[in-house]
Formats: sequence, C-alpha cells, structure tokens
Amino acid sequence: MKAAIVGVTGYTGIELLRIIQGHPQLEIGTVHSYSLHKHSIEEEYPHLQALLHLPVHPFDPVMIMAENDLVFFATPAGVAKELATVFITENFPVIDLSGDFRLKDPALYTQWYEKDAAAPELLAKATYALPEFTSQELGNLISNPGCYATAALLTIAPLVKGGLVDSSSLILDGKSGLSGAGKTLGESTHYVNVDENMSLYKLNRHQHIPEILQQLQQWNEEITNIHFTTSLIPVKRGIFMTAYAKVTDGLSETEIYQAYERCYQNQPFVRLQPVGTLPQLRQVTGTNFCDIGVGLNAETGIVTVVGVIDNLMKGAAGQAIQNYNRWAGIEETSGLWHLPLYP
Amino acid sequence: MKAAIVGVTGYTGIELLRIIQGHPQLEIGTVHSYSLHKHSIEEEYPHLQALLHLPVHPFDPVMIMAENDLVFFATPAGVAKELATVFITENFPVIDLSGDFRLKDPALYTQWYEKDAAAPELLAKATYALPEFTSQELGNLISNPGCYATAALLTIAPLVKGGLVDSSSLILDGKSGLSGAGKTLGESTHYVNVDENMSLYKLNRHQHIPEILQQLQQWNEEITNIHFTTSLIPVKRGIFMTAYAKVTDGLSETEIYQAYERCYQNQPFVRLQPVGTLPQLRQVTGTNFCDIGVGLNAETGIVTVVGVIDNLMKGAAGQAIQNYNRWAGIEETSGLWHLPLYP
Amino acid sequence: MKAAIVGVTGYTGIELLRIIQGHPQLEIGTVHSYSLHKHSIEEEYPHLQALLHLPVHPFDPVMIMAENDLVFFATPAGVAKELATVFITENFPVIDLSGDFRLKDPALYTQWYEKDAAAPELLAKATYALPEFTSQELGNLISNPGCYATAALLTIAPLVKGGLVDSSSLILDGKSGLSGAGKTLGESTHYVNVDENMSLYKLNRHQHIPEILQQLQQWNEEITNIHFTTSLIPVKRGIFMTAYAKVTDGLSETEIYQAYERCYQNQPFVRLQPVGTLPQLRQVTGTNFCDIGVGLNAETGIVTVVGVIDNLMKGAAGQAIQNYNRWAGIEETSGLWHLPLYP
Amino acid sequence: MKAAIVGVTGYTGIELLRIIQGHPQLEIGTVHSYSLHKHSIEEEYPHLQALLHLPVHPFDPVMIMAENDLVFFATPAGVAKELATVFITENFPVIDLSGDFRLKDPALYTQWYEKDAAAPELLAKATYALPEFTSQELGNLISNPGCYATAALLTIAPLVKGGLVDSSSLILDGKSGLSGAGKTLGESTHYVNVDENMSLYKLNRHQHIPEILQQLQQWNEEITNIHFTTSLIPVKRGIFMTAYAKVTDGLSETEIYQAYERCYQNQPFVRLQPVGTLPQLRQVTGTNFCDIGVGLNAETGIVTVVGVIDNLMKGAAGQAIQNYNRWAGIEETSGLWHLPLYP
Repeated sequence: MKAAIVGVTGYTGIELLRIIQGHPQLEIGTVHSYSLHKHSIEEEYPHLQALLHLPVHPFDPVMIMAENDLVFFATPAGVAKELATVFITENFPVIDLSGDFRLKDPALYTQWYEKDAAAPELLAKATYALPEFTSQELGNLISNPGCYATAALLTIAPLVKGGLVDSSSLILDGKSGLSGAGKTLGESTHYVNVDENMSLYKLNRHQHIPEILQQLQQWNEEITNIHFTTSLIPVKRGIFMTAYAKVTDGLSETEIYQAYERCYQNQPFVRLQPVGTLPQLRQVTGTNFCDIGVGLNAETGIVTVVGVIDNLMKGAAGQAIQNYNRWAGIEETSGLWHLPLYP
Repeated sequence: MKAAIVGVTGYTGIELLRIIQGHPQLEIGTVHSYSLHKHSIEEEYPHLQALLHLPVHPFDPVMIMAENDLVFFATPAGVAKELATVFITENFPVIDLSGDFRLKDPALYTQWYEKDAAAPELLAKATYALPEFTSQELGNLISNPGCYATAALLTIAPLVKGGLVDSSSLILDGKSGLSGAGKTLGESTHYVNVDENMSLYKLNRHQHIPEILQQLQQWNEEITNIHFTTSLIPVKRGIFMTAYAKVTDGLSETEIYQAYERCYQNQPFVRLQPVGTLPQLRQVTGTNFCDIGVGLNAETGIVTVVGVIDNLMKGAAGQAIQNYNRWAGIEETSGLWHLPLYP
Repeated sequence: MKAAIVGVTGYTGIELLRIIQGHPQLEIGTVHSYSLHKHSIEEEYPHLQALLHLPVHPFDPVMIMAENDLVFFATPAGVAKELATVFITENFPVIDLSGDFRLKDPALYTQWYEKDAAAPELLAKATYALPEFTSQELGNLISNPGCYATAALLTIAPLVKGGLVDSSSLILDGKSGLSGAGKTLGESTHYVNVDENMSLYKLNRHQHIPEILQQLQQWNEEITNIHFTTSLIPVKRGIFMTAYAKVTDGLSETEIYQAYERCYQNQPFVRLQPVGTLPQLRQVTGTNFCDIGVGLNAETGIVTVVGVIDNLMKGAAGQAIQNYNRWAGIEETSGLWHLPLYP
Repeated sequence: MKAAIVGVTGYTGIELLRIIQGHPQLEIGTVHSYSLHKHSIEEEYPHLQALLHLPVHPFDPVMIMAENDLVFFATPAGVAKELATVFITENFPVIDLSGDFRLKDPALYTQWYEKDAAAPELLAKATYALPEFTSQELGNLISNPGCYATAALLTIAPLVKGGLVDSSSLILDGKSGLSGAGKTLGESTHYVNVDENMSLYKLNRHQHIPEILQQLQQWNEEITNIHFTTSLIPVKRGIFMTAYAKVTDGLSETEIYQAYERCYQNQPFVRLQPVGTLPQLRQVTGTNFCDIGVGLNAETGIVTVVGVIDNLMKGAAGQAIQNYNRWAGIEETSGLWHLPLYP
C-alpha cells in the first residue's frame, strides 16, 4: 500500500516518513505540506540527503486519492477537521494524528482547543484508537491518541479497569521533552529558556485532560474527573509519566503487578519492567514501546506507576503505524520492531 | 566571626565558601578536607584561581577550634556523627549539613541510612532548623535540613499546618539536578546516562522520607506517613517539587493562596508567586529562595503546589548560612541577598 | 555614582544590573527599555522578585541625564548610534556595549553590519577599550569590545605583539553558547535545533572579523587579514577560543609561555594557566576572567592557545564595568571580584 | 553469514548489534563480553527488552569459530591484539574496531598507546580500511579506522591528495561527544563536569595523530606531521571536525569544491553539502554519513572545511559494517541505508 502524509515537515510528519520508509508492507506515495512546500524534502531536512528524493507538494486531495491508499494527517490542531473532510466524505482512509477527531463531544473540543469542532457527522465516523484497548474493527477514519494521553492511559489502565484503586485519588504527573511542543518558535522553546530549567505549564488546562477522561470513563463510568499535570524537561524526546493512586485495601504489590501482567501480556508494545524496577526515559527513545514499572508503598497504601514513551513514536507516528497495521490486518509490529539507537 | 568548613571540596563545601566570602559579617577561617588535601583550594578548583589562596588542611579539630568561631560540616552521611563529637562535647558551635543529626530517633537513622546513628546524647543537643519554622533559640549544634526535605516541607507547610487538606492524600513528586548526587562517580552520574534521560530512583526508600515525616508530625500529629518520590532530571542544580492533595471541601483557591500568604508573609526567602502563576526551576538558581505557586483544580478538588529551590543553596549551603545568621542574631538575609546569575 | 541602563531587559542588560547591584561604588539610577517597558523589572524577570523593585522606563534622555552620572547601552546593533547621540553631544558619559562605535571606518560598519554607520564625528570621540591594552585616558564615549573579539584578542595578543608567530598563519576557531545570540527567537535558537548539535555559522562573514583585525593592526601593522570562525555549542554561556599559529623558528614553549606571563602579569582578569594545562569553559562562568593556556607542538611548530571567557561577563557586561572602573579611576576589579557560582 | 561480537556491552558493541539486526545479509551469531557476561543482553540494556533475547557469553574462541563466519572486536585498546591472535592464526575473519592493528609501526603503537604492540606478523596481515580510499581486496584481518581519524581524513583527503593546499599549514580542530569516551567512569565523564562545559584534552598527545599521519603519508609522502586537536562538547554522539589550510595560490572556491565533488562522487557515505553551506552535527546522528562543507576565505587564502560524523556509526560500528559489506562483496550500503532518527 501507499500512504500520503499531510504535514510532512513537522516533527511527527518526518517521523512517519522514517517509519514508513522502513516498513515492509507500506510505502510513501506523496507527501504534502499545507504551508511549506520546497522542491524536495531533503532541502528542508539535510539529514535525508541521498537517502530520499521526494518532492513536497502543496495539499492536493485529488493527487492524494489518485496516488495513495490512505492519508496520514500530521498537522496542528484545527487543520485536519477542515482538510480531511473531502477524504472522509469519499470514505478514503484517514489516520489523523491531531486532536481534531478525538473528542466525541464537540463542545469539549471547543472548550479545550478554543476552536470550532469538526462536524458531528465526521466525529461520528471516527474511531479513537489506543491500540492496546481497541478491539473493534477500525473504520476509515482513525483518530490517533495524543502523546500525553497515550502515556497516561497505558500507565493507569490496569488500575482503573481492574478497580484496584480509588479512582478519585488518581494523580498523573507528566513530563515531556521539547519535541512535544513542535517546531513553532516561542519563548518557551528558546534554548536559553529550556536548558537547566523545568516548568509546569497549562495547569488544569491541558487539552489532553478531556481526552484522557473520555477514555477512562469508557473503562469505569464512575470516574468524573482526572488530575493531570504537564511539565517540560530539557530533553528532545520522551514523556515520563508518574501516576499515583490509593489502592484498594488489602491489595499487595504482587497482586497489582499481576494485574499489569494480565492486562499487557499479549501487547507487544507494552513492556512491564521486572518486579522492583522502574523504566528510565531513554530506554524507549526511538521505539514504539511504553515501558511501565510499578511499586506499592505499604506505609501509605499508594501505588506509584511510572510509564515512559517516546512522544513522537508511541505518542504519535509509531502508534499511527501500529493503528495502520491493525487496520490493514497485518502484523501489529510491522515496521516498528527495529532495534533503537542507543545511547 | 570566622568559620571553618570540613568537607570543603564537595559541591556543598565550595558553595559555603562562595557565600561566606561574600558575607559581610562572616569570614573563612580554615578549610578542611577529610580525604583530599591539596596545597590549596584553587588547585582543585581552577575557577577560584586569583580570587582565593587558601590552604586545604586535613581534618584538625585543634586547629579548627583555635582559629575559628564555628565549624560547618559539609560531609557525606556518616562523617559528622563521628568527627563532630569533639566539638559538640566542647560546646563549640557546629552547623552540620549532612543527615547525621536530623532524625531524633536513632533507629530511624539506622534503618534509612544503613549506618549506626550518632550517640543519643549528641542527638539530644541537635536542633533541626528549617528556618521558616524554627522559632526556638538555636543551640550550638544545628542540623541543617536536607535538600529534598526543605523543598517538600516549604511547599506543603501551609496546607498541613492549616489543616487545609486531607493529609492522607498528600503526594510529593520531587525532581532533582545532578549536583544533588554529589561528586561521586557512578553509572547514574555518567553524562551519557543522564543526558536526554529522566529516572525515578530509590522508590519509597529515599532517606529524606523520615526527615519530612518527622517535621510534618510536629505540625500535625495525625500524619502517620508521607508519599514522596525522587527523580533525576538532566540539569546541574535545582529541585522541582510538585505536591498534590485533596483540599477540604468548600475551600477556594483564594483561601488556599491566602493561607500561603499568611504563612510566608514575613519570610524573606519564600516568594509566593502571583496568583495564577507557577515558578520555573531556573528562577531560583544561585539563590536561597524557595519560590512557590499554587493552583486548585475545581473539578478534582486537588490542589497542585509547585515549589522550587536551588539544592546547593536553600537546600544546603544557603540555608546553613541563613541558620548561621539566625543563630548569630544578625540579619537573616546577610550574605544571601545578591542578585543571582541569569541566564 | 549612578548609572542608567538602556536595553535592560536583554541578557547583557540584566547582567549589568546584577553586577552594578553588587558594586561598592556604583549604583543603579534608572533602567530603560527602548521596546519593552513593564511596570517593573521583576515582572519580566521573576528571579529578581523581592531582590529588586525597579520600574522600567521607556527611553528618556532627559530623565537619564537628570538622574544618572553615566549611561550604559546594552542594545542591539544599530540602536546606540541613534539614541546615544544626544548624550555624546552633551558630553554625558556613555559606555556602549554594541558594535556601533567599534569600527573606526564607517564603510566597514556598513559592510559588515549592513546598516548605516554612526556619524563620523561621533566615531571620532569613541575609544575602543579592551582594558588590558588600553593605556590612554578614557573619554566620555567608551566602546566596549565584542564578546568574540575580546576572547580572540586576549588569546593571541602576546603572540602578535611579540612577533612570536607568522601572523599570516593565525587561525581563530571560536565556539559560543546560546546567550551570545540574544533573546531573539529563531530557528537557530529553538531548543530542538541546538540540543545535541553543533554548527559553524556566518563563515567568513562574522561582524567581529573587522573589529579583531582593526585591533591587531594597532599591534602589528603588517597584518592584513585574520581567519576567524564562529560555531555554536549547546551551552548557555561562554566562548571557547582555540587559536593556532606557526611560531618563529627556534622558539620554545617556555619562551612563548613567558611572553604570556610578561604580557598579563599585571592584568587582574587574565589568568594564565599553569604550564602544561588548558582552561575549561566553565571555570570562567559568571566571572570577568579570561583564562588562557598554551601548548607548543614541537613536531608541527604550531602553538595552540585556548582562551575562555563568559560572553556576558568579560565578553560584555563585566568588561563594561571594568572599563567603568578604569574610567572612574577606581580599583579595576571593583564589583567584579566575587567568587562565582560553581558548579 | 553470521557474526560474533566481542565486547558487545560497550557503546560500539551495542551499535554493531543494532546495525546487524537490521542488515539483510548478516545476522548475529554469538555475542561475548570479556568482562561482563550477564544472562542476556537485555538485562544489561533494558531498551532491548522484547526485541532481543541473546545470551552474553564469556570470550570463547572455539564457540566463536564454530557458530560464526566472522568476528567483530569492539574492545578497548590492548584487548584485540591478544584475544584476536587465535582467529588470525586460523585465518578466521576478524574486523577489529580498536586501535590495535592500525599502526604499521609497532614502535608508534607503544609510544602513543603506552602498551606493547601486536606481534609484527599479525600487523603485517592487517588492512587499515578507510573504505572510501581502500581499493585493494580486503583480507581476513580488517583494522577499522578510529572515529577522529575517519572524520579528519575524509574532511581533508581531497585537499591533500590533490595537492590543493600547503600541507604544512593544515590544522584539524576536532570536537567530540561523550560516547566517544566510552562507558568508563571518570571525572571527565561525570555529568556535572560535562554539562555547560567544553574542554580541549590530550593536546598533541591524542593517539589518533599517528593514525591520521600514516594515512596522509600514503597520499602525500612529503607530509611529515599533522596538527590535530581534540575537544569535548556536551552532546552524546558526534564528531565535528573543522579543518583549515592555506590553498595553493590562485585556486578558487569553485575549483576546491569541484575537487571534493570528483573525490566523493561515487562514495555513497560522503555527502558534499550544497555550495555555500556547511553541515550541522545532528544531520548525521544515527547514520553512516560523513557530511562535508567547504568555504574559501578570499582575504586570507585559507579554506575552512567542516566534516561531521556520528562517532559510533561512521566512526566505529557503521564503518565496520561498511567494511564488512566490501569484504563480503555485497552492496556497500547494505544495512546502512535506513532513515535516521530525527530530531
């Protein structure tokens, strides 16, 4: 199959390109930039010289449908809900990596993204696909989860689904590297403002809060809210999610650990760490894994769970390919099983 | 007055040296290293060339008492409880920056530090001095709080003292730079293992847990435990403490903010951030401040409090000088009120 | 005396503020921003909260002359040549930290800065003041050398002045941290583009080339050009200058070293490293020092000289204060002799 | 074919593993650690969990020869010259990534490595293989060039081979990331000593000097020495080589550029940058490329050439595979043509 990428010059777009180029059953058809179209991708990205010669086209739905079997949208919030309409209408497969089709309730989108939501008939067609927990068949409009939401949900799913914790006590403390903020220039991405610094931003206002909550409520309808914070740390890639919750009285660390084992035993991209160990951020860099470690404090009755992902991989492009693999009915790990760069 | 420093070649020792050199009422007498004594300090630390010519002596209690008015111990755990005995016995003033005299219960020290505790009669003489909350007169053995403990306690004190939160719901998520780990070489301090990485270490086993708890119990005897985690982030200096707790029903963000205002209004080294803002780590680098910001999530009823300190300043040497100032009966901010390096 | 700062909100302006605040004979009068004037400086810079309450005024020459004894310009190229005119005309003392008054030949300024030069009568009044080599009395318009130029000139001065090398063989390879690029947002200052990267920029086009050459020609009129390159490394502060040159036949390393000793023996801010050692960048961070190390390769006959400075201190604000001290006839090290933050 | 790796737990060993795992014509046979053999590689390297289950064996030449077609040595200097003897004697193919077989003159090895050299009969069998310049057939003992030497030689080869510059004027200023220093703990690899720092080390004493010179003399026997320096910059991976030389009178930048074009037009792993541009370090991270940019300063007559490589790829493991590909008579780019991680 051939795939188009819209928004190829962003960090997520370029990551999609990298994965697809190494994918045995998928290849790049055409790539597009809705704002920046140079003669070819390697002029914008010198690391691709010699490896790739690929013209960057303006957005062109006719070309996309003529020369590809599906299209990935790797665009900022607010773009896909407009530009993808033509494909959805034609039932041409779309995998959207932005937030535009994640929230089922348009009012929530408007509230958290401060933009008009996608048309209800489009939203109705979208499947929010966190692969580890999406058993239904995937239709032709796949909404890929957000990076923080992916890390948060995978980190706490066994606790919530198993009813192992007091869900009102759940705290999610997320830390992200700078690629999560995209290529946009701003005070908060200036090197001098990031280096040797850490900051918590968008307190109680991060747009992944309703996305996390929507999924949690699928698992446990009693949950009415979630406490989730986001901080920036001086690294390029990665989300380090620390979760805390009061466990149900009498549960042992072993029982909690076993719940994680059961939940993820058939999931290739979740690696539960050995008992007593926690994952470090860099061990997932460049991979589609979410690595998880669990520790119960017998004194406080609070479990600490650490989940780490690469925000551009499991948090974006890697997961989009994982969703593609499932949609296409091929091996879930296809194109995602390379050994990562290390150190 | 003249001060001696034992352990001058460590990060905390060199920071004490820096502050005392700029202090209007205190000067360096003699400096000592219990393991490393070069001809002079500037041979070990080239940044001090020309600025200072100071011989580094071996540990020598006779010299220390003959030429100084007090002594700072900036040594690893386990050293001061032995070497400081002679001074304590002679009632010669000691300010210890290590953990050796912090825990009143010797059994706790043994449990958490995995060493024999200081003799009970020595512990009995020690004052654990978190300056913002130590109103009693300081004796001649001052135990300076730990870096994480300082950040944790200042961040949540108004919540706990004011009974504003369900103390069983308190979560303290601490992140530290690498200078907190000292000069010791190890896998966890190798550049390649730190750069582009983050990790949570010593889960439920960090030796500052009993120290934090001991102080919290002074403020609220109902507290029986505390959930506190420690992570490493790729910066040199600084602790970024994020605290979470369920607030008492009906409390507004304004009421919580006002409790912080009341608590710290006369404390020169705690800077409550403007309403609606949170501090960034680097704004305290090189200073003795603890900057605090508060935000209540009305949905979850959970308050997020961020406190930041420089681990070598407010978390160690700066606070030791603040304690000295109070002990000596001089202006609390003496020697600690310089504008910091920025950026 | 009281000093005004124009351009106080830039990195150099804030560094001037820091130094002056700790200077025993100079104090802040009024501070100004030609573009950004908030209510007070600590609103723009939270690290200054509590330490300073200082209103930021718009540029106001009448106020500046009424309330100050001199004015520092810490503004981008092209600003001082316009705004400082009124002070120069009135013979009100000006220390300019920009490039506007450095080049004696207006044509060179126009060529390298791509702007119109200052009026010739203003340029005629300016003294280019690299303190270590400026013996004449300083007038009321002091032009402070550029950061790269300072590092380059101090690193090679003894070689050029002493005729110890073939000046046509001189190579200056300069590396700078990001604060040297200022607060302006751009692709080249985005964290993701700097972290884990290094790049050489403005090859043969850096505007400090004519400044370096102008001074070298004062020392040795046979020099007709200089080969100088500039690279960015992922640090906040500092210039690491590596210089290479063929030494005159028969010269030994000892003779070269002695030439450096003679040249700098009375210069408080140049610290020649011990024989056989080279300075590291961080040993000058936060200081006004230029640290220099020298090594001759007997095989190649080429001497390597490493000079390091803090670009915001000896490369900008620190040197401006050093020039102030000399102009005011006070101790050259006044306000500049504090122990620096370390590590 | 199957390959063994001796020294698999080092940075270079783990990189070999990564490449071979993605190589279409080569696979991992057995892996060995001469000091550290855990149950399996993923226990030492958590990033490999699930991807690989591979027991780490002690060094075992019988097993290696029985189960593999060749062996890579990714060991520190001094190991291969002993442990590889048995393979060389048996004419079992060896690719050595250390310095043990690079220098033809045993006395030079002893001088620069401060160890006894390999036996002369072993050295006689070794081919020093910089692939771009090794046309002869490769025997069964391939000596892979050093990381700095690779960067240096590729950066200046067209200048030296073409006689375009005064070779006595050549200066090579090399900067390296920390993975080049290996996993060994030391003061110079402690995070606090690297972060925000830069240093020049081993001035005129780096062991790659004789290696570079040996190759240059193959190209131009008049060269008697080379001026080469090495510095550390705070990044994980990469060598940034800046070279300077006086060009022959009358040569234009275009002529020099064309010499580079001719030299590298058929070399897949050298990417000459577009006219007027220089490569940045990160554009080669994770790749086997050496990217080169050239600029002539018409004023000084000095050409600046910047060459960048990934020290673990083109500087070690990648080049070893490139040599393997040539030795095996397969496509030179096999296993080395994946799109790299970015950013």
